Amino acid sequence: MWADLAPIGRDPGSGGYRRFAWTDEDAALREWFAGEATARGLDLVEDRAGNQWAWLGDPDADGPGVVLGSHLDSVPDGGAFDGPLGVVSAFAALDALRVRGVVPSRPLAVAHFGDEEGARFGIACAGSRIITGALDADRARGLTDADGVRLGEAFTRTGRRAEHLGRDDETLRRIGTFVELHVEQGRGLIDLDRPVAVGSGIRPHGRWRVDLTGTADHAGTTRMFDRKDAMQAFAMLVTSVRAAAIAQEGVATCGKVRVTPNGVNAIASHVTAWVDARAGSEQQVRDIVADIARDLEAMDGATMTEESWTGVTAFDPALADDLAAMLDGAPQLDTGAGHDAGVLAVAGIPTAMLFVRNPTGVSHSPAEFAERDDCLAGVDALTQVVERLVG
Amino acid sequence: MWADLAPIGRDPGSGGYRRFAWTDEDAALREWFAGEATARGLDLVEDRAGNQWAWLGDPDADGPGVVLGSHLDSVPDGGAFDGPLGVVSAFAALDALRVRGVVPSRPLAVAHFGDEEGARFGIACAGSRIITGALDADRARGLTDADGVRLGEAFTRTGRRAEHLGRDDETLRRIGTFVELHVEQGRGLIDLDRPVAVGSGIRPHGRWRVDLTGTADHAGTTRMFDRKDAMQAFAMLVTSVRAAAIAQEGVATCGKVRVTPNGVNAIASHVTAWVDARAGSEQQVRDIVADIARDLEAMDGATMTEESWTGVTAFDPALADDLAAMLDGAPQLDTGAGHDAGVLAVAGIPTAMLFVRNPTGVSHSPAEFAERDDCLAGVDALTQVVERLVG
Repeated sequence: MWADLAPIGRDPGSGGYRRFAWTDEDAALREWFAGEATARGLDLVEDRAGNQWAWLGDPDADGPGVVLGSHLDSVPDGGAFDGPLGVVSAFAALDALRVRGVVPSRPLAVAHFGDEEGARFGIACAGSRIITGALDADRARGLTDADGVRLGEAFTRTGRRAEHLGRDDETLRRIGTFVELHVEQGRGLIDLDRPVAVGSGIRPHGRWRVDLTGTADHAGTTRMFDRKDAMQAFAMLVTSVRAAAIAQEGVATCGKVRVTPNGVNAIASHVTAWVDARAGSEQQVRDIVADIARDLEAMDGATMTEESWTGVTAFDPALADDLAAMLDGAPQLDTGAGHDAGVLAVAGIPTAMLFVRNPTGVSHSPAEFAERDDCLAGVDALTQVVERLVG
Repeated sequence: MWADLAPIGRDPGSGGYRRFAWTDEDAALREWFAGEATARGLDLVEDRAGNQWAWLGDPDADGPGVVLGSHLDSVPDGGAFDGPLGVVSAFAALDALRVRGVVPSRPLAVAHFGDEEGARFGIACAGSRIITGALDADRARGLTDADGVRLGEAFTRTGRRAEHLGRDDETLRRIGTFVELHVEQGRGLIDLDRPVAVGSGIRPHGRWRVDLTGTADHAGTTRMFDRKDAMQAFAMLVTSVRAAAIAQEGVATCGKVRVTPNGVNAIASHVTAWVDARAGSEQQVRDIVADIARDLEAMDGATMTEESWTGVTAFDPALADDLAAMLDGAPQLDTGAGHDAGVLAVAGIPTAMLFVRNPTGVSHSPAEFAERDDCLAGVDALTQVVERLVG
């Protein structure tokens, strides 16, 4: 399966992946998924957001069923494992069940959620958010990419109907339990020296916009002490963000910035920057942001606006305990990254995650990696989990 | 004259000017110039780079002549005075000479240099650099704007012929002396409490590109101490640039930055930043850059590349002394900004500048200003200078 998937959307320069929603690469990924489903005699259906479901058994007659899956899209220059490992492992787990002669007592599916990274239209987990109603259909249709193309338009161009986008109760009713396997995006399993963990939940996180005001002026003629340079304020913000995250034992990042006028010989008159903060508890995230806000008070004309906030998302705790015990006491880890599993959990669906060790901790990068043996341990764990749920 | 010029290219939101080369606004400015020339019975000619020359007398038969002038274009959201004050004052000085009944002994012209700010195609003083050969014609034609339009193409679209772009010896031969009046872009005349200064030269300056390398990684899952964040390196650079400028008593600016991938939830893997440094002596500029380079040595994967270097540009010293003495001992000031006068001086043309007081020191901003009385003092000084040169 990997060999067919590997070349799709791979940038020959960086070696990273550029698999964005409703592009030619995305269509190739969907074709790959359909091929794998057909080869196994599964029933392929698409929901109202274009997510793909490959069913073994009839979820409407005999459901709800057990669903395994993840996403196939990527961030710009993303790695090979973030997403695809979960889908490939799901098909592999089905194959392993068959080899073991297990006849599922309930319907079973592999799911492919579209547009998880939100790299093109800016909203992460758009596929799962649309079908659960967490993302309003009108808002989704109106999202635009960097070229001004609306999501609804991009969806229509693939031959789908944009008016179909929306909450999909028929699909949701079919999901009894959802299990997503994902490469770990940190170093938790390295420290624990284990190949696989069970997910306990998604850490609280939020996104803030910071606006910094300077005075437009000529870079060649304005003396240093006469300047109000928004870029200097930005440098202080970036330093403050790191210090606050370390002080509160969370993570905080300034990864995106927009400078006005952004000219070599012009003192910056305005900088807009975005801060992403996450931590083990909601209070810790709030404390990080409070630390940054206190530093910003010293700057004339600096404002900080909350753009998004997500509290702790817990996966099904009894299910997680059960799976951890079954998997030889596998550790339970929370994660700082968002996942479709988190969206489904918030929508009230019993949900579990498995994480596979990442030997560098690096993710969202061409350097992302997982050892073959750890991937096989992941498939084996997923197979045990499914056998428990449908055996 | 001001009333006709004021609305052209003015942004109603910011109140600043957006007058870029070879746009509709630029065409309107050229029409304005042609109208002023015609109204005074001057002979209007355009050189090979599209700069406009309005001659009184025949520079080919009786030249070389004396030329007054400046530019009419602007930076994005620039002020009303940077450029236009010099052109308007030149026409006003011609009018004053007439009123005084002075019959010029030599040909006399007002010049309008195009594309001085380089706001559209990235090269400052493109109009004067092309005719002196300082900017190669092929390179000029190939410069592209933000929409990918080549300068040669934009030039052609205005009905001009791109193959005409190039060094223009016929035009250069006509210029005996060039005098550019310009609003001061700093606070020198405020400190000296004088309305007008004579320019002594342009301070040495250069432009460096700094590349900072990080590791692409997930903002939600990578612990602070495991990160190599190019944005943190950038914050250190911005701090270093300011400290170095202050230590060496010059100015240095980080006004432009490009971040990869520039995503809210992605640790920056690469930052490219530009540093503009200027000071009173070439050694001071070199010392600023050496200070920054020393700070960069502490960062893994940081490189600094010189993109441009211009040593001290001296205007004609005897002429400057003569004019300063004539103008009641007007002070002589150097400037940190580039000017067409600097380009002509480097090409060997005797050149002088006059600066008019800027009561805030602010330039390249809608807030740029000059008092009416100071503007009139500028016209009077320019009139005296021309009378001395052609009387």
